[in-house]
Amino acid sequence: MTVLVPQEQDFPRWYQDVVATAQVAENGPVRGTMVIRPWGYAIWERLEAAIDERIKAAGARNAYFPLLIPEAFMRREAEHVEGFSPELAVVTHGGGKELEEPAVVRPTSETIVNSSFARWISSYRDLPLLINQWANVVRWELRPRIFLRSSEFLWQEGHTAHATREDAHGYALRILEEVYADAMVQELAIPVFRGRKTEREKFAGAELSWSCEGVMRDGKALQMGTSHELGQNFARAFGIRFSDRDGQLRHVWQTSWGTSTRLLGAMIMVHGDDHGLRVPPRLAPTQVVVVVARAGEGVLEAATTAVAELERVGVRVELDDRVEVSAGRRIIDHELRGVPVRVELGPRDLAAGQAIVARRVRTEKEPHPLRSLAEQISRMLVDDQQELLAEATALRDERTRSARSIDEARELAADGLARLPWRVCGSDGEHRLAQAGVSVRCLVREDGKPVDDPDADGVDALVARAY
Amino acid sequence: MTVLVPQEQDFPRWYQDVVATAQVAENGPVRGTMVIRPWGYAIWERLEAAIDERIKAAGARNAYFPLLIPEAFMRREAEHVEGFSPELAVVTHGGGKELEEPAVVRPTSETIVNSSFARWISSYRDLPLLINQWANVVRWELRPRIFLRSSEFLWQEGHTAHATREDAHGYALRILEEVYADAMVQELAIPVFRGRKTEREKFAGAELSWSCEGVMRDGKALQMGTSHELGQNFARAFGIRFSDRDGQLRHVWQTSWGTSTRLLGAMIMVHGDDHGLRVPPRLAPTQVVVVVARAGEGVLEAATTAVAELERVGVRVELDDRVEVSAGRRIIDHELRGVPVRVELGPRDLAAGQAIVARRVRTEKEPHPLRSLAEQISRMLVDDQQELLAEATALRDERTRSARSIDEARELAADGLARLPWRVCGSDGEHRLAQAGVSVRCLVREDGKPVDDPDADGVDALVARAY
Repeated sequence: MTVLVPQEQDFPRWYQDVVATAQVAENGPVRGTMVIRPWGYAIWERLEAAIDERIKAAGARNAYFPLLIPEAFMRREAEHVEGFSPELAVVTHGGGKELEEPAVVRPTSETIVNSSFARWISSYRDLPLLINQWANVVRWELRPRIFLRSSEFLWQEGHTAHATREDAHGYALRILEEVYADAMVQELAIPVFRGRKTEREKFAGAELSWSCEGVMRDGKALQMGTSHELGQNFARAFGIRFSDRDGQLRHVWQTSWGTSTRLLGAMIMVHGDDHGLRVPPRLAPTQVVVVVARAGEGVLEAATTAVAELERVGVRVELDDRVEVSAGRRIIDHELRGVPVRVELGPRDLAAGQAIVARRVRTEKEPHPLRSLAEQISRMLVDDQQELLAEATALRDERTRSARSIDEARELAADGLARLPWRVCGSDGEHRLAQAGVSVRCLVREDGKPVDDPDADGVDALVARAY
Repeated sequence: MTVLVPQEQDFPRWYQDVVATAQVAENGPVRGTMVIRPWGYAIWERLEAAIDERIKAAGARNAYFPLLIPEAFMRREAEHVEGFSPELAVVTHGGGKELEEPAVVRPTSETIVNSSFARWISSYRDLPLLINQWANVVRWELRPRIFLRSSEFLWQEGHTAHATREDAHGYALRILEEVYADAMVQELAIPVFRGRKTEREKFAGAELSWSCEGVMRDGKALQMGTSHELGQNFARAFGIRFSDRDGQLRHVWQTSWGTSTRLLGAMIMVHGDDHGLRVPPRLAPTQVVVVVARAGEGVLEAATTAVAELERVGVRVELDDRVEVSAGRRIIDHELRGVPVRVELGPRDLAAGQAIVARRVRTEKEPHPLRSLAEQISRMLVDDQQELLAEATALRDERTRSARSIDEARELAADGLARLPWRVCGSDGEHRLAQAGVSVRCLVREDGKPVDDPDADGVDALVARAY
């Protein structure tokens, strides 16, 4: 029994339904905005903490910049203004009056961060300056979809300034690998391609953009994080200069990088199945739910003991003793929410000194002796995190195929990623693909190293339909 | 030598200067907005974590609601709209077009949260519903001051729904005591009065408001957190009803409660001195800085060893080995930032097997043997947290005096809090005081219990000038 439309039948509908019925999020009253409900938000909190830890390990410090940006700031960098103008939300009235200068609600904070950097940086001793911000941003969306394209979303955005182009380049790639790819693989259990964006796809105002791309269950790609080399574009626009060791005044070299609540969409679309979400154990707010299936002598006590023992070994556990609701109904809810492990306990199990253990990554249920339950489940959680990653890797590999021509790539993109030599594709091919709703997600090298020269041997375009 | 205007001479100027020179925050380009710099933000992160832990212990779960609220929502509750209208920032354009309905940038989220609650609540089984949100809010300020009154600030706002008035009442007071007062005392080392707001001072849309009030070094009061009983006002405006055990449909009873980056202002104005900030050890991002005063054989190694030992005992420590900058200059900076303990190490100290230890809460410096440094400092940090609380308590007690008349209360409010029987003051007295720029911060009872009936015996008005 399931309450969801099967993925095979209608993936977008399945996505919408699972987000709603698992109580992850819902639409807000202003078009394109969303309410992130407690279950969804608790997953986000854990993901945020995991990313934040990696960002700090990479030497960046958190700060906070204003939500409202003078409209003139957005206009200072030509490509940036062009990229964002159609998406801006504009505040024209404040404190009961029309404002002399309208303010935009930040779509990203390059301009306002750099107006501070211009004051903070004067010497090479101030570099590198590595700053990160956790914040909400607003980009008006015409075709909104929760987590994937919402008019407001939560994200982190890093902004850094360096003395040399090489240092900025190295840092942009370090974030891509050590922060984003690592968190996506280790925490979200999602393997990602790391690659370079084409000129067409790069960030407005960047010289070069890098991204992590995931493959969803429907074969579409999702950009999960980006890291940009901004060159000296913003440094010139905002006058960010430093006196170098030789006493010369020079413009800084910059990066910016971001990832967002979109990652929740990735988690849903990579791991979710026809029964609901499957939350990776490392991110699950509740890793184990102990269900009192039916009331009976000693059952609640045994369940409470199991909960205490699981807590003792560091497992995040929840007791479900709502026996007034049918066990079947409650089990469906826990499956929908994607709680990694469910322990069912009733009078008959207790008499046999065992409990039924259901692991969300698999389908089977198995009895386990109550005595050693906590230790066993503790190990299962580690294994199941790996199992999800293995499944997602198999999915990605199965859906990623080689193409030798633009037409073949377009066809393969109907339900997966096509790997097409960039020399075969090129900007013209990219343009043709775009007309069919297919894009070059990023450029990768066969040996996995970053693409220095797109036109070199062995550079492939990853071609796909994308969210 | 100091870089700050003494507090005695010009407190507002001192505040402004210390915020700037300690690199805590600075003004943003849109009037009244602020940039929270890494040192200030790292203190906020720790405070946020401490408050969040207590909120979760009180059973509330975090969620996230949209920044943008349809203008019509704000109008549904009469007092609420009246209270906030003059402060609203309004988005009139989005995605390059004029919006059909303008959206306000949330000044607080009662209306949008309650539009969700109306969908989430249907039965008594859904109650109590205890939700918290960490977010930015915008209230247009005509006389902005960083942290104290800024057009945008960061805060948490709790929103709850209960089956009975009593349950809502109890929860509002629980948050005031177990979350706010406890965090303020234990983490910020600031003693606070807990009391009931007068009709004049209560939150727009509440039936009853409670607050925590602190006393600053200049004798002014600062409202540091509020907890409101909303009655059924929003439940009626948004149609939030539940079927009770007896099958009857009833409106829920609600609370809301918030505290904000204002607390950073409190920390600065209660603990700061003429040398700069004094950050309570529990909140200090860096608790100890080990300063290599001058280069010399083995000095850097000894300093590095001290850092490693401090880290081993769980102390947050930073190494300052910038010997190219004079030690005096660096010491002034660490004092300005309010790092709780400074360890100075030079060739002569090393030869004597000791380091100079300066505790920010006191003025003296003392030599300590290098051997036992980590353990000693670990104890000092605990003691100094208490010392700050003791000092702040002495300050508050000294500045809080009894008054027998409205005139006397007004005079005492020139540099402190006056405690005036509410029966002597009353609404008329409150009105007279307001004309002199003095307000009733809250009503308290002599026995410290919550004020049920303002007109009862032994209820005092705390009268003060306030931020």
